[in-house]
Amino acid sequence: MLQTVTVVGVGLIGGSFALALREAGFTGRILGVSSPRTLETALRLGVINEGIGLEEGIRRADLVYLAQPISQILEVIPQIGPWLGPDAVVTDAGSTKVEIVRAAEAHLPPGAFLGGHPMAGKESRGVESAEAGLFRNRSYILTPTSGNPRGHLSSFRDFLARFECLVFELTAEQHDSIIAYYSHVPQLASTALAVTVSGVNGTKKAAGPGLIDMTRLAMSSYTVWKDILVTNRAHIGPALDDYISVLQQLRASLGTPEMERFFATGESLARGLRTDFDFIDKT
Amino acid sequence: MLQTVTVVGVGLIGGSFALALREAGFTGRILGVSSPRTLETALRLGVINEGIGLEEGIRRADLVYLAQPISQILEVIPQIGPWLGPDAVVTDAGSTKVEIVRAAEAHLPPGAFLGGHPMAGKESRGVESAEAGLFRNRSYILTPTSGNPRGHLSSFRDFLARFECLVFELTAEQHDSIIAYYSHVPQLASTALAVTVSGVNGTKKAAGPGLIDMTRLAMSSYTVWKDILVTNRAHIGPALDDYISVLQQLRASLGTPEMERFFATGESLARGLRTDFDFIDKT
Repeated sequence: MLQTVTVVGVGLIGGSFALALREAGFTGRILGVSSPRTLETALRLGVINEGIGLEEGIRRADLVYLAQPISQILEVIPQIGPWLGPDAVVTDAGSTKVEIVRAAEAHLPPGAFLGGHPMAGKESRGVESAEAGLFRNRSYILTPTSGNPRGHLSSFRDFLARFECLVFELTAEQHDSIIAYYSHVPQLASTALAVTVSGVNGTKKAAGPGLIDMTRLAMSSYTVWKDILVTNRAHIGPALDDYISVLQQLRASLGTPEMERFFATGESLARGLRTDFDFIDKT
Repeated sequence: MLQTVTVVGVGLIGGSFALALREAGFTGRILGVSSPRTLETALRLGVINEGIGLEEGIRRADLVYLAQPISQILEVIPQIGPWLGPDAVVTDAGSTKVEIVRAAEAHLPPGAFLGGHPMAGKESRGVESAEAGLFRNRSYILTPTSGNPRGHLSSFRDFLARFECLVFELTAEQHDSIIAYYSHVPQLASTALAVTVSGVNGTKKAAGPGLIDMTRLAMSSYTVWKDILVTNRAHIGPALDDYISVLQQLRASLGTPEMERFFATGESLARGLRTDFDFIDKT
């Protein structure tokens, strides 16, 4: 049974995981590893029971939840192996998986690690924005690796099942290649649109609701995206090429009947996203 | 004083104009020109007072509000000149302005026409979706042309002022060139993203809120967009080239420090859109 969970990186995701765990009935202890200021806030908000240093946090944990930016996860994984108890397990919430899983396979005992990616977030960041319901009605992807999984990993999965999120598995490679299209290209499409519009010499008053929609992602933090773009560059490059190529085809079809086919394909995909997975939050 | 207003094309926009006019205190008569089925619905919903044919509707009107698709507006303008009363005025709600204004200048008496573009809409269409508040907290662009404007046009502007929308003027050329960036490229960016994602061989369950945001416009009706793309092709082509060029620069900056500058520029534009025009609906 899970007795002690250590969240490393008590921000929006790590803090929400702690709160969701509590809401799902976890009665053990939640330790937090973060900056002193964040720990103070997390304690005040009742998100964690105790702030602690990395080494002791790992030594005491049954489950370690790594929720820092990807580059920090990649720095921490090689350090923690020696501190990990014989039954302890590690999962993470990094938005790219190939490099993280590779590090875990190199540095952690077989069966001790399970990669994860909760497809959740919001515009505001930090533990102040954490909420127990952040994962509800969202996808939560797991990327299992080789090795017979330690028992605490199935306890972790049991808790996830109570978060009311759609849990499913992909290989790390499948994850990074699909997410390049579903998340990383959309981010760059939004940033590029905002950059393009910023070059227009004309009144911003003419902006309508469509542009507002399409530039929401452009407000994302580069601190988060930097690591994603670096670690998944191999998949994002070709996915972005595909997007550019479709745009060039649309450009060539301006004012021709061919355009109708693009609209039909796009509409069908967009409506499908909203109806095939009914439970997914459509807002 | 405006006594009789004729709405040609009693759909979402035309119907909402009629309702907004009423809410703003218009006490005269509202005539509707549309298909028999639409007129029946519009009468039942109290959107118009009377359904009527085009010629009689124009002959009786002080103000004509053209709210059909652009191609139909372009067909109607050359017909209605001879039926227009000596004080009657015409405005329209077409999403592109250069071709419409050109037609009006060729076929309507000087001072009788004022082009307009309400930057409003919603996912559902038709008179059933019309609402008095559709224009509230949205921009409403006017594109004045040469000729001393007839008096009823200032009554029209007075009513617009009561719609609580942000009314401002551009030339038709400025309008079409700016809107290519603010509305038409965002639409094509969304359609292209949906088309790109539709080609991915992988579970749609991995779709997150970002992709949902970025594919909302892709559900737009091609019936509406066909005319926009045809009549504003001259501006959309170069604007789309700019967008593609920015995407190619982002592609080249993947994993380099240069990317940070793009994110900063995009974020600044996106936040500015949301704060510079406080009253604009941010949802």
